[in-house]
Amino acid sequence: MDLANRSLVTVDDLSIGEMEGLFSLADEMSDSMNEQRGVCQGKVMASLFFEPSTRTRLSFEAAMHRLGGNVISAVDIGSTSLAKGESIADMARVVGSYADIIVIRHPWEGAAKVVADYAGVPVINAGDGGHQHPTQTLCDLYTLQKERHTIKGLRITLWGDLKYGRTIHSLIFALAKFGADILFCPSPGLEVPEHVIKKLTTEYGGELVRYEALDQAVKEGRFPLDAIYITPSSPHQLAMMPTISMQVELKAGVDALYVTRPQQERFATAEEGQELKKRYPVVNKRLLKGKAFRKTLVMHPLPRVDELAYELDADSRSMYFKQAARGVPVRMALIALLLGAKEVAIAKEEPLPKIDYPLYRRGFGVKCPNPKCVSGQETEMKYLKPEFKIANREPLTLRCIYCEHGLEPKYIASSHWHEGRLDSKKYHSADSHWVREIRPENLIIFDSENEAQTHGFKPSSYVTRRRKEHGKG
Amino acid sequence: MDLANRSLVTVDDLSIGEMEGLFSLADEMSDSMNEQRGVCQGKVMASLFFEPSTRTRLSFEAAMHRLGGNVISAVDIGSTSLAKGESIADMARVVGSYADIIVIRHPWEGAAKVVADYAGVPVINAGDGGHQHPTQTLCDLYTLQKERHTIKGLRITLWGDLKYGRTIHSLIFALAKFGADILFCPSPGLEVPEHVIKKLTTEYGGELVRYEALDQAVKEGRFPLDAIYITPSSPHQLAMMPTISMQVELKAGVDALYVTRPQQERFATAEEGQELKKRYPVVNKRLLKGKAFRKTLVMHPLPRVDELAYELDADSRSMYFKQAARGVPVRMALIALLLGAKEVAIAKEEPLPKIDYPLYRRGFGVKCPNPKCVSGQETEMKYLKPEFKIANREPLTLRCIYCEHGLEPKYIASSHWHEGRLDSKKYHSADSHWVREIRPENLIIFDSENEAQTHGFKPSSYVTRRRKEHGKG
Amino acid sequence: MDLANRSLVTVDDLSIGEMEGLFSLADEMSDSMNEQRGVCQGKVMASLFFEPSTRTRLSFEAAMHRLGGNVISAVDIGSTSLAKGESIADMARVVGSYADIIVIRHPWEGAAKVVADYAGVPVINAGDGGHQHPTQTLCDLYTLQKERHTIKGLRITLWGDLKYGRTIHSLIFALAKFGADILFCPSPGLEVPEHVIKKLTTEYGGELVRYEALDQAVKEGRFPLDAIYITPSSPHQLAMMPTISMQVELKAGVDALYVTRPQQERFATAEEGQELKKRYPVVNKRLLKGKAFRKTLVMHPLPRVDELAYELDADSRSMYFKQAARGVPVRMALIALLLGAKEVAIAKEEPLPKIDYPLYRRGFGVKCPNPKCVSGQETEMKYLKPEFKIANREPLTLRCIYCEHGLEPKYIASSHWHEGRLDSKKYHSADSHWVREIRPENLIIFDSENEAQTHGFKPSSYVTRRRKEHGKG
Repeated sequence: MDLANRSLVTVDDLSIGEMEGLFSLADEMSDSMNEQRGVCQGKVMASLFFEPSTRTRLSFEAAMHRLGGNVISAVDIGSTSLAKGESIADMARVVGSYADIIVIRHPWEGAAKVVADYAGVPVINAGDGGHQHPTQTLCDLYTLQKERHTIKGLRITLWGDLKYGRTIHSLIFALAKFGADILFCPSPGLEVPEHVIKKLTTEYGGELVRYEALDQAVKEGRFPLDAIYITPSSPHQLAMMPTISMQVELKAGVDALYVTRPQQERFATAEEGQELKKRYPVVNKRLLKGKAFRKTLVMHPLPRVDELAYELDADSRSMYFKQAARGVPVRMALIALLLGAKEVAIAKEEPLPKIDYPLYRRGFGVKCPNPKCVSGQETEMKYLKPEFKIANREPLTLRCIYCEHGLEPKYIASSHWHEGRLDSKKYHSADSHWVREIRPENLIIFDSENEAQTHGFKPSSYVTRRRKEHGKG
Repeated sequence: MDLANRSLVTVDDLSIGEMEGLFSLADEMSDSMNEQRGVCQGKVMASLFFEPSTRTRLSFEAAMHRLGGNVISAVDIGSTSLAKGESIADMARVVGSYADIIVIRHPWEGAAKVVADYAGVPVINAGDGGHQHPTQTLCDLYTLQKERHTIKGLRITLWGDLKYGRTIHSLIFALAKFGADILFCPSPGLEVPEHVIKKLTTEYGGELVRYEALDQAVKEGRFPLDAIYITPSSPHQLAMMPTISMQVELKAGVDALYVTRPQQERFATAEEGQELKKRYPVVNKRLLKGKAFRKTLVMHPLPRVDELAYELDADSRSMYFKQAARGVPVRMALIALLLGAKEVAIAKEEPLPKIDYPLYRRGFGVKCPNPKCVSGQETEMKYLKPEFKIANREPLTLRCIYCEHGLEPKYIASSHWHEGRLDSKKYHSADSHWVREIRPENLIIFDSENEAQTHGFKPSSYVTRRRKEHGKG
Repeated sequence: MDLANRSLVTVDDLSIGEMEGLFSLADEMSDSMNEQRGVCQGKVMASLFFEPSTRTRLSFEAAMHRLGGNVISAVDIGSTSLAKGESIADMARVVGSYADIIVIRHPWEGAAKVVADYAGVPVINAGDGGHQHPTQTLCDLYTLQKERHTIKGLRITLWGDLKYGRTIHSLIFALAKFGADILFCPSPGLEVPEHVIKKLTTEYGGELVRYEALDQAVKEGRFPLDAIYITPSSPHQLAMMPTISMQVELKAGVDALYVTRPQQERFATAEEGQELKKRYPVVNKRLLKGKAFRKTLVMHPLPRVDELAYELDADSRSMYFKQAARGVPVRMALIALLLGAKEVAIAKEEPLPKIDYPLYRRGFGVKCPNPKCVSGQETEMKYLKPEFKIANREPLTLRCIYCEHGLEPKYIASSHWHEGRLDSKKYHSADSHWVREIRPENLIIFDSENEAQTHGFKPSSYVTRRRKEHGKG
């Protein structure tokens, strides 16, 4: 396995086999910590934190030092170069010429991808807004692997803020990839975002059973269950009769309860925060007395606030401090692999075929609706063009390549048919038959009729007719 | 001497012999600075500064680098993890799993003790609010030792802000332990806090002579003397006739004049600051012309503001830049010892028996009155129970084990006598005969009658009677 | 060449030969980066940044790590020690006792000189207010040297904010020293300050041709040319008939176009900023289509904002990312030389004789008019005396030794003639014949009559007479 010169922006960047190889290297390194001092000697890691963080940054820096490498570090840099109006692409190029590897945390979603695109050296995403935090997921998976010896087939409950927690988003995709079942227990109002659910169900082949479809007995449990993701590798009957079998499952117990704190700093308003915090469910001794939790690993990415009682700290099921401690060997293994200082053999290749979506990269007509996406920021729009994967044709669904938010644009046109024929530059409704007929490479997409007309297109007769109907109605 | 795996939270954590051993190691290291590069190779020190600081942090980090070790550093972290509501115990556990040793500065008094309790690795207190700053004291003592070859029997004048200066509090206890006499010259309004004076006089066996008891001649000197601590190792007659002999002493000269700046950042209000600053006494050439200062070492922990004139910088008596420079070898020695990378032989053992006070650790009824004590902070109350040393029985005096502030609670009860007998759950006045009769392990202590009643206790007849008398009065 | 134990405060601190030696060491180091790990082993560099910065600091720190050295770093320290009222001289002394070399960035002009005066170890100026940024200039010159193999005789255009850009000020003097011609293209309102122009024309022997004297054809070009500095090593006829020959020159092409961003953080007011930014000229593909730019190196110290279009990033003339990357070997060479860890042979000595101006160091009567000069700051006035070079006698012109701002004081006196004769303590007008007659070592200088009288001087009859005349007028 050769990971040298690659970057880790999302959990999708590593195959199952690569992750397992990384875990075995982490095992090896944590068994002989004092012998790793020469592995990255003379190498320089830049850690760039545009959001306050102590834990993750120190974990990365400790990892680099344990490997004998050096660290240059910039923290809380919201107020420095960027305030001078610099783009992150420029910063990436410059720092990439100083350092051998870059670790970046940034509040904009998709920022790590931009840094990886421009730096010229391996880049590790240490959290980009609410998007992903893949190294936290590696620590989580590593703990599952060490404690249960496999991840496939486990039943993992995700608890708390499933909306803003980027660690949750990374973890969901990774668990699905490994073939685990996922039970969603969000705090009310903090459910998993739709674009995550969509990616989950279309790319990993499993099935999502929503609350409404759950059996009454499940609904009334102490367990605030909202939905269940059933992996395709689960026993067949489970997928067929989910609500019944889920009860059986719950009796069999949950393998891990993954708790997260309310990500208050991402709440829209302080009032929203107060309200959401009030209803936030607490994991404590009483909850864990339930039969389903008898052997459950209690996990948390930390820091915790009030959602996880201190009385659990001495409980042998509690894994959260171990998770944190294991972050060092996991990050050591990752850094060493990306720098090409270590290689590991892959035991098996991943079973999931990677889906190659056609790209939409015209750079006009449509832009990412996520206000925190890097592609929409003033300093970045000077050089970044919006770009999307066409994740679905009916309904037409785009996925931003930076922040992975989805959107369903309303209007389309074809570049092919209109080549040189201005009079026939027509735009169509995205839910018309045209969406099937225009070839992806010819597709032109618009957010609105206004957009389409700005670019010199005229409404097709269908669009006009429908507009009239709406006018009548 | 084996200091490996121990922590330095207060100056009490090291015996005289251990400090002298540390000083001789510091001598050795400063004589062969270039040969220390392998001492802590591969080790990682975390420096966590929750208060702005440059000097102390850089001194620690330079020390670790000179030993060949690595540093992970978090500065001005008031706004990061803690702002997310994390406790310092959680932070200590996590960082303790990344690093081999932790250096912590924190505005809460007693915070370093909490970190040491939870980190699982050696912890060095680099200043916890107004409580202590033991490594500064080590640098101060090291300078005295190097310049005077002994500390015992020296006459040290403490000058300026003796109230808020944590370096002063650490230094007072250390000087008393070594058997030095201490002359207190506070700026008006910035006298040594009572709890420090109490600990000084009860634990170190010396005598405090207050201003009122001083001879008129001493009072009228240029010297703003407020009180004198006379060590028990001083000549007998001195302790017997302090004011007369002090004049003799002052003629003999002061060994060191330890100047401190007004700790404005700890003043209650800006107005208090302005007022106190105005009256702050300045040490300059004119003052040092006095006979008593002919051979006096002028010391200062730095930074200075206006209390120490620049005209003294070239004076051979000025030690403050040497003190700062010596911080590096002293901290190198300390780090190497706590990491077990070095050992030193102890020349002699300390003469003072350590007093083992009984502990009060019920965790209810009474809490530390110091608003800056770590035990009273919202994030820490979730897991920390107030705990006190019973420093005295009559009057009943508790000393917080975290910040070492003292309190004299008003009401007591006994756990023993009431076992299972609800009707006899009575509380008593702390100044009644009961304080002698209840055994320490059975003692229950309350701040107020309200507290006592909340816990289901009823007033004893004596309490009731006294209350009536007060009502009449 | 032995640069050991010297400091780099301004570009004047290195001769041409020394810079060329440094460049050849940088070449050597960048060719064998992995072999430099032992050069500064065991050494400690302190990087002290009193202004936010990421790029420059990381470049220095990466350089030190590549040399095998260690770094202690304090960033954004506006709010720490200095806020406690400490002087930078004290800080310099203390940090100088921790570290082997200091890198300092500070908003006060002349601050780096103070640090160098007090630290006791080599000091590198990483930017002091609007004064200088000599290591940026070394990177700039290194790029010119590498791309053009010589700097002498090049035609360099400076573009944008020539008023507040400290990199520009350093660069102007260095280019003049090397014998390059300089074309000034300021954004309107951001012209080169007068004190820079004065130093340029008096010390480097060249001639400045202002806009007014330029040929109409030059004025009307797309090029917003404001003035041209013609080096004395240029062909003779050029210096004689500048406007004609400049047209010839422009046809021959510009060797480098050095673009700078608007230094908004130094603008007097936000409104000034808005106004100046609006008129700021943009360098883009269209501009570079001009004949004069066919082979022009496009340079920029970065960060850029809007003044340099992204469309140029792929252009082979664009040098700005190379400039940044080359900062690491240049700074490696500089650090190694100042620490005495490397030496290089000097190929040739500089042609320019160093001018030894007489010094005015009475410390009273006159002070630097620059409000950002270190000599006028409250914390520094306690120990720093204003000091000036007497750069010119008629008109009498002083240059502050810290920030290098110039001033023309109005009144003078002589210390010699008045020795002991109070009645003859008279002050004279600085534009009278006395300025020629008083010997520099006896000169006393006053900003105002008030100043003079405060120090016990009386007006000379000429001063009195003139005052009367003004009164009449």
